[in-house]
Amino acid sequence: MKFEDELKSLKEQILYDKVFDIPENITNIAIAGIGGSGVIGKIFQELYTKVPVVTINSLYIPDHINENTLFIAVSYSGNTKETLDVLGKAEKRGVQSIAITSGGELEKISRNVIKIPSGHNPRCALGYMIAPLLKSFKLISKEEVEEAYNLLNRLDNDNAREKEIADAIAAKKLIPVIYSTPPFASVSYRWKTQFNENAKVFAYASFFPESAHNDMAALRYTYKKKNFYFMALEDATNRDMKKVVDAVEKLTKVSFHRIDAEGSSTFAKMMYLIHVGDYVSYHLATYRKKDPSDLKIVAKFKKMTE
Amino acid sequence: MKFEDELKSLKEQILYDKVFDIPENITNIAIAGIGGSGVIGKIFQELYTKVPVVTINSLYIPDHINENTLFIAVSYSGNTKETLDVLGKAEKRGVQSIAITSGGELEKISRNVIKIPSGHNPRCALGYMIAPLLKSFKLISKEEVEEAYNLLNRLDNDNAREKEIADAIAAKKLIPVIYSTPPFASVSYRWKTQFNENAKVFAYASFFPESAHNDMAALRYTYKKKNFYFMALEDATNRDMKKVVDAVEKLTKVSFHRIDAEGSSTFAKMMYLIHVGDYVSYHLATYRKKDPSDLKIVAKFKKMTE
Repeated sequence: MKFEDELKSLKEQILYDKVFDIPENITNIAIAGIGGSGVIGKIFQELYTKVPVVTINSLYIPDHINENTLFIAVSYSGNTKETLDVLGKAEKRGVQSIAITSGGELEKISRNVIKIPSGHNPRCALGYMIAPLLKSFKLISKEEVEEAYNLLNRLDNDNAREKEIADAIAAKKLIPVIYSTPPFASVSYRWKTQFNENAKVFAYASFFPESAHNDMAALRYTYKKKNFYFMALEDATNRDMKKVVDAVEKLTKVSFHRIDAEGSSTFAKMMYLIHVGDYVSYHLATYRKKDPSDLKIVAKFKKMTE
Repeated sequence: MKFEDELKSLKEQILYDKVFDIPENITNIAIAGIGGSGVIGKIFQELYTKVPVVTINSLYIPDHINENTLFIAVSYSGNTKETLDVLGKAEKRGVQSIAITSGGELEKISRNVIKIPSGHNPRCALGYMIAPLLKSFKLISKEEVEEAYNLLNRLDNDNAREKEIADAIAAKKLIPVIYSTPPFASVSYRWKTQFNENAKVFAYASFFPESAHNDMAALRYTYKKKNFYFMALEDATNRDMKKVVDAVEKLTKVSFHRIDAEGSSTFAKMMYLIHVGDYVSYHLATYRKKDPSDLKIVAKFKKMTE
């Protein structure tokens, strides 16, 4: 599949409606995943806080993981070494587990599997991975999915602004710096990884108000400021956070390219901003004559560290 | 107090031994803090996993916060708006709370206070903030504190290597990029904020293995690589992670300045690496003729967003 067609499939992916039953007696949730699958846990963590949710992206599991833990293993390929490893460790503690995967080893070893369609680059299967999770926890309604579908569809048909941003970054070979305001910390992180993996460009992501307490001094006085392209992903309805970004711009004398989320539900806003980033990174890859789907280097890495 | 004397006081700070009683019936912990006080939660999160620990660095508290939550509010000044705000919200849910502060509003409104000595820059009071927390949870022994004391003392007396690193960064006006391997994710983040706040230099921090899945492609193919100074904070005893960093270096053709933690306990290793970063950022400030203690810009920001 052409990479652009993969991007266009996101709107269909969020319609995917396989769900799993949430086991009873769950007092906490752990979501394991890394890379393109790792961002799923970060998104979920921002949307579901009824019980503590921890994300796992290394080879270690927290001591508190036990039979009251719902352990969700997310690996698009089903063969991510780290995720298989921590699932094995968690199973020994008697967790209740669910796997979200398109196949691989993870499908074979898991009792409860949400098997999602294969054939995508993992980072282009975000909709397939996040939809079953959010729908199982009843975090999104049919109307919210529909709202997101329409926004994504609009971006698929018109991403001229995203091309312009990519153009501005490419023309001066700038390093993208992406800030966000709540609840979009996972979204700015996704932008960063998309710049890395699609456009093969180094990028930095962080969020406010935290960054106002440390990046602030750097943004005002650091050298090399002209090498960066500063963006802020925002929620127009959050006036307190608008004030925060206004103050940072004024004090640091740095102008951000400020992008407001469209849509009314948090889910639609997140999906919209994620897709804006998909297109910016895709166009940047095109300008740089890089194949956005190529991640042979990560495949080599996995071989070398087996 | 001269900034260098503040740095030198870290070893004395970790001897601080006021503790609080851990309430019974605690099923989860939330630690609120931002900026120089915010890193305390990140460090604690890596060292204590017997119950789920969430960190809070915005104006929102998770739904699961209730009477079974131990809510730890960390603010050195005691006047951090965000921390006071979330503590207020948490109190309404009936949490059991502890404040770690040198005074301010937080001391006034809290029933349980660990009152630590005042007179420091918040980022130079890390020892005072972390010691009561780790000692209350019995996470560090007298021997481990002594080991850390000796390593910190050695760095206070000889930080020529740290000066050399700062020199290399300053000479070419480079942007520091700090990677770490587990359990040092909070340490690389602390390095970043120290570069920001002391040296007024933009910096990037991340950790392996996560970064091997996204930064990897960028490190190999991105433009502007020569503008960065790459470092990796490592644990010599962790051979799997050594292999990861070896593979990343080989595949990306980027050489990291690799720094091994000294010491045998995790606490001593963390304190040692944190202090190496203290000195690198301090020397970089000196080279750049910046006052490392000056954060007037953040004070202005707080005023503007009151």
